[in-house]
Amino acid sequence: MPGQHCATDIQRNIDCSTPAALFTPSPATAIELQPLMAHADLTSENEKSQENVKKDPKHPNLQKAKTCFLKGVSYFAGDMEVFGKWIEKQFLLLQVLDWVLRGAAQVMFVNNPLSGLIIFAGLILQNYWWALNGFVGTLFATISALILQQNRGAIAAGLYGYNGILVGLLMAVFSNGGDWYWWLLLPNIFMSMMCPVVSSALASINSRWDLPVFTLPFNILVCLHMVATGHYNHHFPQVLIQPRSELPNITWAEIDVAKLFMSVPVGIGQVYGCDNPWTGGIFIISLFISSPITCAHAVLGSAVGMVSGLALAAPFGDIYFGLWGYNCVLACIAIGGMFYALTWQVHLLAITCAFFCAYLGSAIANIMSRFGLPACTWPFCLSALTFLLLTTGTNRIFKLPLAKVTYPEKNLVFFWKMKKEEKRERVEKEKSEREEKQRALEEEVIQNEKEQLRLELEEAERRDASKALEGNIDEMCVEVDAPEGEDDATEGQGIQHTHLDPADYV
Amino acid sequence: MPGQHCATDIQRNIDCSTPAALFTPSPATAIELQPLMAHADLTSENEKSQENVKKDPKHPNLQKAKTCFLKGVSYFAGDMEVFGKWIEKQFLLLQVLDWVLRGAAQVMFVNNPLSGLIIFAGLILQNYWWALNGFVGTLFATISALILQQNRGAIAAGLYGYNGILVGLLMAVFSNGGDWYWWLLLPNIFMSMMCPVVSSALASINSRWDLPVFTLPFNILVCLHMVATGHYNHHFPQVLIQPRSELPNITWAEIDVAKLFMSVPVGIGQVYGCDNPWTGGIFIISLFISSPITCAHAVLGSAVGMVSGLALAAPFGDIYFGLWGYNCVLACIAIGGMFYALTWQVHLLAITCAFFCAYLGSAIANIMSRFGLPACTWPFCLSALTFLLLTTGTNRIFKLPLAKVTYPEKNLVFFWKMKKEEKRERVEKEKSEREEKQRALEEEVIQNEKEQLRLELEEAERRDASKALEGNIDEMCVEVDAPEGEDDATEGQGIQHTHLDPADYV
Amino acid sequence: MPGQHCATDIQRNIDCSTPAALFTPSPATAIELQPLMAHADLTSENEKSQENVKKDPKHPNLQKAKTCFLKGVSYFAGDMEVFGKWIEKQFLLLQVLDWVLRGAAQVMFVNNPLSGLIIFAGLILQNYWWALNGFVGTLFATISALILQQNRGAIAAGLYGYNGILVGLLMAVFSNGGDWYWWLLLPNIFMSMMCPVVSSALASINSRWDLPVFTLPFNILVCLHMVATGHYNHHFPQVLIQPRSELPNITWAEIDVAKLFMSVPVGIGQVYGCDNPWTGGIFIISLFISSPITCAHAVLGSAVGMVSGLALAAPFGDIYFGLWGYNCVLACIAIGGMFYALTWQVHLLAITCAFFCAYLGSAIANIMSRFGLPACTWPFCLSALTFLLLTTGTNRIFKLPLAKVTYPEKNLVFFWKMKKEEKRERVEKEKSEREEKQRALEEEVIQNEKEQLRLELEEAERRDASKALEGNIDEMCVEVDAPEGEDDATEGQGIQHTHLDPADYV
Repeated sequence: MPGQHCATDIQRNIDCSTPAALFTPSPATAIELQPLMAHADLTSENEKSQENVKKDPKHPNLQKAKTCFLKGVSYFAGDMEVFGKWIEKQFLLLQVLDWVLRGAAQVMFVNNPLSGLIIFAGLILQNYWWALNGFVGTLFATISALILQQNRGAIAAGLYGYNGILVGLLMAVFSNGGDWYWWLLLPNIFMSMMCPVVSSALASINSRWDLPVFTLPFNILVCLHMVATGHYNHHFPQVLIQPRSELPNITWAEIDVAKLFMSVPVGIGQVYGCDNPWTGGIFIISLFISSPITCAHAVLGSAVGMVSGLALAAPFGDIYFGLWGYNCVLACIAIGGMFYALTWQVHLLAITCAFFCAYLGSAIANIMSRFGLPACTWPFCLSALTFLLLTTGTNRIFKLPLAKVTYPEKNLVFFWKMKKEEKRERVEKEKSEREEKQRALEEEVIQNEKEQLRLELEEAERRDASKALEGNIDEMCVEVDAPEGEDDATEGQGIQHTHLDPADYV
Repeated sequence: MPGQHCATDIQRNIDCSTPAALFTPSPATAIELQPLMAHADLTSENEKSQENVKKDPKHPNLQKAKTCFLKGVSYFAGDMEVFGKWIEKQFLLLQVLDWVLRGAAQVMFVNNPLSGLIIFAGLILQNYWWALNGFVGTLFATISALILQQNRGAIAAGLYGYNGILVGLLMAVFSNGGDWYWWLLLPNIFMSMMCPVVSSALASINSRWDLPVFTLPFNILVCLHMVATGHYNHHFPQVLIQPRSELPNITWAEIDVAKLFMSVPVGIGQVYGCDNPWTGGIFIISLFISSPITCAHAVLGSAVGMVSGLALAAPFGDIYFGLWGYNCVLACIAIGGMFYALTWQVHLLAITCAFFCAYLGSAIANIMSRFGLPACTWPFCLSALTFLLLTTGTNRIFKLPLAKVTYPEKNLVFFWKMKKEEKRERVEKEKSEREEKQRALEEEVIQNEKEQLRLELEEAERRDASKALEGNIDEMCVEVDAPEGEDDATEGQGIQHTHLDPADYV
Repeated sequence: MPGQHCATDIQRNIDCSTPAALFTPSPATAIELQPLMAHADLTSENEKSQENVKKDPKHPNLQKAKTCFLKGVSYFAGDMEVFGKWIEKQFLLLQVLDWVLRGAAQVMFVNNPLSGLIIFAGLILQNYWWALNGFVGTLFATISALILQQNRGAIAAGLYGYNGILVGLLMAVFSNGGDWYWWLLLPNIFMSMMCPVVSSALASINSRWDLPVFTLPFNILVCLHMVATGHYNHHFPQVLIQPRSELPNITWAEIDVAKLFMSVPVGIGQVYGCDNPWTGGIFIISLFISSPITCAHAVLGSAVGMVSGLALAAPFGDIYFGLWGYNCVLACIAIGGMFYALTWQVHLLAITCAFFCAYLGSAIANIMSRFGLPACTWPFCLSALTFLLLTTGTNRIFKLPLAKVTYPEKNLVFFWKMKKEEKRERVEKEKSEREEKQRALEEEVIQNEKEQLRLELEEAERRDASKALEGNIDEMCVEVDAPEGEDDATEGQGIQHTHLDPADYV
């Protein structure tokens, strides 16, 4: 299945082959896990500390405890692969539940059923009806993907569910029919079941540039439903969204700093359409469990969105409500470590992308409002795709191949390994080149010495020959081939001379 | 030309090579034609009945009559290839007329001049002026394609004309200048002549995904003309289309069932912008002549559109007027047998696509109305392209290569042939595998027998050797290499033993 | 660097390799330059006159003077490559200034710092504040491209600056904050710095079809800024653009012919958002310096735009203001010699494209005005891309590979060389084919003669053999292999016979 998995054009694949060694109980492997785990080892210096730990046999107990702890963490952090492997052998219904939970978390690029469970808890805290619609959406999107025989690995990673949960949730959020308007489940189910169709179609296009489809299917389908029905529809009325013709006067004195700070978790909550700060806080926890880098970038993105809102003179209400944050949250996560390997340059790029996304968010919200539509996550999709299409000359901004994308920490390990491999190859190449040079130099010296010897010898021969010419001129007529014989004799005298056959001078 | 034809990036090509056998007068071939013909043989069971017929020599007269009938049908059904071949050698003006008629029918994916003629009859029944504009549009689009030296096979199939007829027709339909406003012919000719340019440009993009351009050039050019001029333009005023701010109250008692049923042919007529149910009926006949599968899906699509309209609380007037039907008609034809080979799964997919198209139609109509534009056939194009981009793991949903697309019946034959070929190959492969296995098994048996014999022999030898050891212990000092000699002798005794060289045990 | 340059996916590259010979002082080379230069040698007949000049040694002085003049012209015309080579070795700040000036001219596809300087002069004539914003935009776009390590050759050609100057200029033009509203520099710098990001992303997509990005990044970013802030924004208010609901009555008597003629240079000025006819005139001069073909098509495009405006009943004010011209100017330049090699067919295509662009311009302006946006250069981008995606069967419409695009005159030389090369190859091929045929014919004759001889010989042998049979029938029993011996003897008799081994008859 891993082979099949890698060959697919589905977005964020979990590479099932490499991490097999991740959860073996040997301490040495567990140490290797460190960069994947939750403990603030975001910079490359932890690599050194890791090596220090390896070389440090002084505290075996501490070492052991740490190993055990890391092993424990590895069971529920990252993409919970051990659990994923275990559930593969279980009852189908349990598997589908796992896929639904992973789908719920995949909205934030997190492939972790525990995070999904916490996210559902947050949704229930916000609104029962919305949570139910979200669940129905995820479930039917997953079922539809199964019917359409999409890639099983991608379904198991929740990659067909996350558009479903958003479609379900946001259709409930923007419905003007009020809570528990059961008819809504009909278009909800239809639209969720269209998710894999649209996902597959978009993946056919985006895969040409090795790009994920992000939440584009959700954006397309929710906008489709909302604009097809509209506010005045008798069956499925939508909330009234109207373009703003005038902006209220902004006085900086009126600003509420507490609400401004609260807008950061609210912005994260708004990814799922939730305005409850506690729900946002719960989402932050769910992100932290799986991947601290993702969590950090989510908070950063939300803050950038808030600042952008202030800079562009947005009404404070919108900022407090998290409308400036949620797109930046997603864009910042996507660029900051998820699809690029995290370096300082990429970190700065992620922040730039978040600012660009906030700008774009304002623009798209203004345009969409003309049609009575919310901005959805179009700004995130478009800005993230733009920044993923960017090509630069530097190797510090490394876009991971889509099939290798997992979560920021593992992506980093992949990147470091690749770098090490490259470095080793370079070093080896340099070494071999240096050796080559050394050898060439030595050979030259030998060559020179040989040449010297040869010249001396030639001179000696010439002298011998002239002597022979002078002294034995009368013997010449008798012994015609004497010079040759003499030559052989000369050769026999010097050891070095035997080496001086013509092949040495090539 | 067929080779040149297949290599082109033009949408629905007619493969000129394979159907050459279609119209030969031999009865055997005519029987093969059956699945292509008009007589309710849509399911795969007719294949069997066909074979029954072949094996059934009891009713030679009936057989002969049937053959004659099918031969007759083949002259004007399908893509009328015999006629196409004949007209190739005629006067250019006649050829152009053939291309124009085929272009008129190609709007519905029908490559048949007779259908085109009937369609023009329907248009004349609707409105003389519109029919004239449609004719002018088709003509100039074809001429422009000739000037731009586009693929001759594609031009002859009417693939450059169908956008022209729609541009001409719809520009007349949406013009507010009234009938016989002759100035309209100027932009009509300009826009028709732009059709091949836009078609060629879009084909350059779509061919990367092996997709047709559908009616996108028409959509682009008509919207272009309408929005460039607008309702208040002094030269080319357009009809006023305004967004609906409030929907009338719908009371189910008010529904007019007769009109509702009439909306099915009207929906088919609206493909050409005609609201006359008789015109729609004529169009149904023209479809039936060429391809009954196409005809059935057209009616089905129109019905799906009507149902969707009721489900989404559309005003009854719009439904009666066929505005919910025409996109679904085209989408249902395109998916149901035209670009996919028709199976039950594809049939369900076509219905799903029609529902999706209706939804999308409502959405796009609402958006376009903000700009004073009609929905044109954007919903059809977008939904059909989405469903054609879909990739699934099942082989029951088979997308035909664009160069092999002709009409549903012939597509099916192509698909069946491919399937049969695959099956035969699989059977052969299985057979050879089974034989291989059999041989392996036999060899194993022989091997085992040999092994048995070898073991027995070895034992015998050992016994001989021990006897020799026991009896002739005093002779040993004299004959040191006796055991070897004895071994050779032993070999000479058994015939089977000679085969037991080490190579047999590999 | 040239190799690196050609491999890039950046739009209009300057091929640094071929024109090396352009500026050597030998007269023969200078004559070769003629078609590249500014003196009315736009048609292919100058090729002949060129050859006449070469063969004409009568007027050596005139010849010399002409050569000197052309050499002088070559220093500041075209893409000023000598200057570009010289500045490469200068101080970085000077280089950046060169890049900024080239960037300013690249809006019109001109890669010439002198043209850029003149264009800046025109901008200063129009408005100091706008010119400053344009300069800041170009500068920061170039700096951003350097930071993102984009292709150095493309940066040096100003390909990252031209979107920057447009972003800077148009943000100032459409700002409602008035001149010298310094805060505007903040979004100006941010948006200019986003230019290379969006350029690079779009190039990743467009390069699949070997298409340039044109001014799409500018269109995207300026629309983004304008719609994100809007007219009522407190920090960055935009001018109010509203859709026209009614058009004023047009009476042809009111037309002002002088203003209509003036609209041609104004249309060229509007490429940079300038409505001053003198500024437009200055721009025409700057175009003429670099490439007369470009200049001619710019004027032609502006005129076509004006005519289209009149045809589509546009308000005279818009036409006078150059709003119908600037897109056509760019489209006409792009198609007429820049990306296609200029032939008469391409010239007609450029005019068609200009008309299409004018139509599209009206449509896009109407749509964009609903969102309070100007049309920017979207019409130009979309129409030019459409016409560049066009594929035709004729070889008179030749699209240059993107890496070979320089300026119309040099493109023509490239095209002619290619044609000549092709012709030479064809002639050679024909020649070799003719020779092959001749040889085959001769061989056939020889073959026939041989065959004749062989037949005669065989007959002779047969006769000999029958004689031997008849006469020496009694000797047969003694000499059993006599016939063979006789055969050998026969062979010895005829010289031709030795050649008649079976290999000859293959």
